[in-house]
Amino acid sequence: MASDKSTPPLTVDSLNPKVLKCEYAVRGEIVSLAQKLQQDLQANPGSHPFEEILYCNIGNPQSLGQQPITFFREVLALCDHPTILDKSETQGLFSADSIERAWQILDQIPGRATGAYSHSQGIKGLRDTIAAGIEARDGFPADPNDIFLTDGASPAVHMMMQLLIRSESDGIFCPIPQYPLYSASIALHGGTLVPYYLDEATGWGLEVSELKKQLETARQKGITVRALVVINPGNPTGQVLAEENQRAIVEFCKKEGLVLLADEVYQENIYVPEKQFHSFKKVARSMGYGDKDIPLVSFQSVSKGYYGECGKRGGYMEVTGFSPEVREQIYKVASVNLCSNISGQILASLVMCPPKVGDESYESYFAEKDGILQSLARRAKTLEDALNSLEGVTCNKAEGAMYLFPQIKLPKKAIQEAEKAKKAPDAYYASRLLNATGIVVVPGSGFGQVPGTWHFRCTILPQEEKIPAIVTRLTDFHKKFMDEFRD
Amino acid sequence: MASDKSTPPLTVDSLNPKVLKCEYAVRGEIVSLAQKLQQDLQANPGSHPFEEILYCNIGNPQSLGQQPITFFREVLALCDHPTILDKSETQGLFSADSIERAWQILDQIPGRATGAYSHSQGIKGLRDTIAAGIEARDGFPADPNDIFLTDGASPAVHMMMQLLIRSESDGIFCPIPQYPLYSASIALHGGTLVPYYLDEATGWGLEVSELKKQLETARQKGITVRALVVINPGNPTGQVLAEENQRAIVEFCKKEGLVLLADEVYQENIYVPEKQFHSFKKVARSMGYGDKDIPLVSFQSVSKGYYGECGKRGGYMEVTGFSPEVREQIYKVASVNLCSNISGQILASLVMCPPKVGDESYESYFAEKDGILQSLARRAKTLEDALNSLEGVTCNKAEGAMYLFPQIKLPKKAIQEAEKAKKAPDAYYASRLLNATGIVVVPGSGFGQVPGTWHFRCTILPQEEKIPAIVTRLTDFHKKFMDEFRD
Repeated sequence: MASDKSTPPLTVDSLNPKVLKCEYAVRGEIVSLAQKLQQDLQANPGSHPFEEILYCNIGNPQSLGQQPITFFREVLALCDHPTILDKSETQGLFSADSIERAWQILDQIPGRATGAYSHSQGIKGLRDTIAAGIEARDGFPADPNDIFLTDGASPAVHMMMQLLIRSESDGIFCPIPQYPLYSASIALHGGTLVPYYLDEATGWGLEVSELKKQLETARQKGITVRALVVINPGNPTGQVLAEENQRAIVEFCKKEGLVLLADEVYQENIYVPEKQFHSFKKVARSMGYGDKDIPLVSFQSVSKGYYGECGKRGGYMEVTGFSPEVREQIYKVASVNLCSNISGQILASLVMCPPKVGDESYESYFAEKDGILQSLARRAKTLEDALNSLEGVTCNKAEGAMYLFPQIKLPKKAIQEAEKAKKAPDAYYASRLLNATGIVVVPGSGFGQVPGTWHFRCTILPQEEKIPAIVTRLTDFHKKFMDEFRD
Repeated sequence: MASDKSTPPLTVDSLNPKVLKCEYAVRGEIVSLAQKLQQDLQANPGSHPFEEILYCNIGNPQSLGQQPITFFREVLALCDHPTILDKSETQGLFSADSIERAWQILDQIPGRATGAYSHSQGIKGLRDTIAAGIEARDGFPADPNDIFLTDGASPAVHMMMQLLIRSESDGIFCPIPQYPLYSASIALHGGTLVPYYLDEATGWGLEVSELKKQLETARQKGITVRALVVINPGNPTGQVLAEENQRAIVEFCKKEGLVLLADEVYQENIYVPEKQFHSFKKVARSMGYGDKDIPLVSFQSVSKGYYGECGKRGGYMEVTGFSPEVREQIYKVASVNLCSNISGQILASLVMCPPKVGDESYESYFAEKDGILQSLARRAKTLEDALNSLEGVTCNKAEGAMYLFPQIKLPKKAIQEAEKAKKAPDAYYASRLLNATGIVVVPGSGFGQVPGTWHFRCTILPQEEKIPAIVTRLTDFHKKFMDEFRD
């Protein structure tokens, strides 16, 4: 018998090295510091020069006071406890169309069993509704059998990475800057992130010439590039791609045999009249590419948009252009986790099929939705202007999504000070900002940036009445910081 | 520029081979056949010799008619739509203690934001409640910081496999028969399943001598065994471990430096008076092993027990005995997916802290719970007796969990017929059973079995009024099957 010395106790060094390599800045060191400061403030009010922590690190609207859309929550509550649907009091508490919708949804669930595991792709009737919503959005057919409902978009992204990555010789094309779910997922699955740089000077433009150059470089290194991730509207960059640009990207993927992974979770978050959201599937179909011509996955989530239902963990991916054999493998991986949560599934169907003109809830629904989106647009503009007014800071417009990603030209002395503190210069700036103002932003290094440039990501999500104070605090902090370090 | 021939289109052969290797029988071929038959029945009623498909393949109680616990659903509905909490009609629709509990839970959620991402381990107040529930169950302290809330138990199992498995030289000890989540997860993460056989002759006994023998064998093959999975109550085997036996297992893990992964999702499902559930943590603590002495993970889920809320995807793991550095890595992996769904988190807190004597809901809650558990015990006994009365079939008692796992001694001619049909003999039996009766069971080969023996897993979950008909259909089918093939 081997002795008990033969297996050493579990240490970090004996964990899966892919896990060690993975990083996720959005919930990284800066957030731990923020949580510590928040505990300080609770224990000793007045212990810091601010009264509350403002979490601008993450696209989590309701944590900052955004209210849920009433209709969606009415339907969810009724589906959670359907025995009240028949009661007279219910009509006083819920809108008529939410009651009707809840009945419709219950009828779509086999045996009305809202507590049962569903089909591993999600409840068929809800997928029908989602497919109809996609069709209405795009003007091209959508097939409910192409929909895989998931607990938010993140597990869907992991699933695709798991399928595509065989070894570190497999590469996944990602924008830089990127949302760190991608770098984290690629690291966890042992692949290689192949970067393509968005051009900050042209409003985070995505140039096919850059894609070609980087693909060539990767191939010379022996990397098989398997897929291209596009985030549109951009995260953390906020740009909305022009349709012409999207066509070029589709053509590039088609030519190079790449799977197009389209992160379209911000499809409802567009703030400028000159831009519109076009799904990559719509663009591909309008170019004449049918279901068999190009493998394309579109990710959607209930966490973003005007609904911002992050805690519900609902989302889906629409999977087109794969062979039946590959589809079967995707289904198998989905089935190992049985199914995504039913409330999230229901909510995904609701956001793709909200109240319509004439429905009892329509007016209040539209007012809530429009109020949120208009306010987000104003907040984006105010914060963008404020950032651009700071010494050494330039900030592209947030055309969409929920973020600004300003560049800060840091003085040499600040960079030296960061080195002394053993921090990246942008991380140093972010931690100074947090300690001085309570505002939590994520250093650009967590997303990737052109070497030698420094950025941070700041959400546009604090409630509107707080924005002036944030602008003041940020402006004061920045001025003092520059006064301290100016070359 | 490389030509478009350089990257071949995506085929099964170019997918991650770990995905191809993964199998998940519970939703495998037999279920696809069942779904096909169900479609037939809908399109052409009377096209098969049965009127409905009876899904006995999966522990999915509500899909077979089990009703949710009223109190749990009341609280969930109120938390989904808290604006009704203040309305007078609400008191007519909901119990006083569900309203009170909903307020308590809302107060535990920062900003009462039920639609926000939570802390990546789950809402702290809910973890407090769960820790208190564990303490009340075990009589030993539990720390809310040790709780990681997850979307059901499956993602928690994947997380631990991801941390522990570095390569195929890393082994995870699993019982045979096992719940195929484990074999699937080990395959997806590229590790090696190291089997230990449960002894069918002694009621699926788990012998430490067998563990020692298999550990030795694995080490001789160069496998580093990292963890031991124990499923108690057993799945698919239904046995409940004796405390004495659990102590020996703890001692073995301690001696051999193994992480103990305790699947305790059936902790509420015990049907025999002579057996009780003891968590492995309680057993380890009662042996004097403290938090630092043994790395131990306990998995719990809202999908099982008397609640059976599979579709809510709630669950948690309690992680003890790991170093702070390792814990940080677990946290990081959890944070990449942001958080589990909040309804599932709330439900996990409710099942660990249900109504108490004196609460308005207590009587109805207890009646619902007791009704379900008593009925499950009766169903288990009736099905067990029926199976044992069949020619060539022996079935151990379902002391707990939701399954029976009978052994069938198949006649040689049936085995030859299965070979002709290119099926494993147990898969052949299961598909014949399905085609003749509409009853869906999972072939034993999906769980693992001693080579040359054949089994199937059948849940005890069809509603009680259907059990007599199931027994009749199964008995008739089996008799005809044996008449056809008897040696």
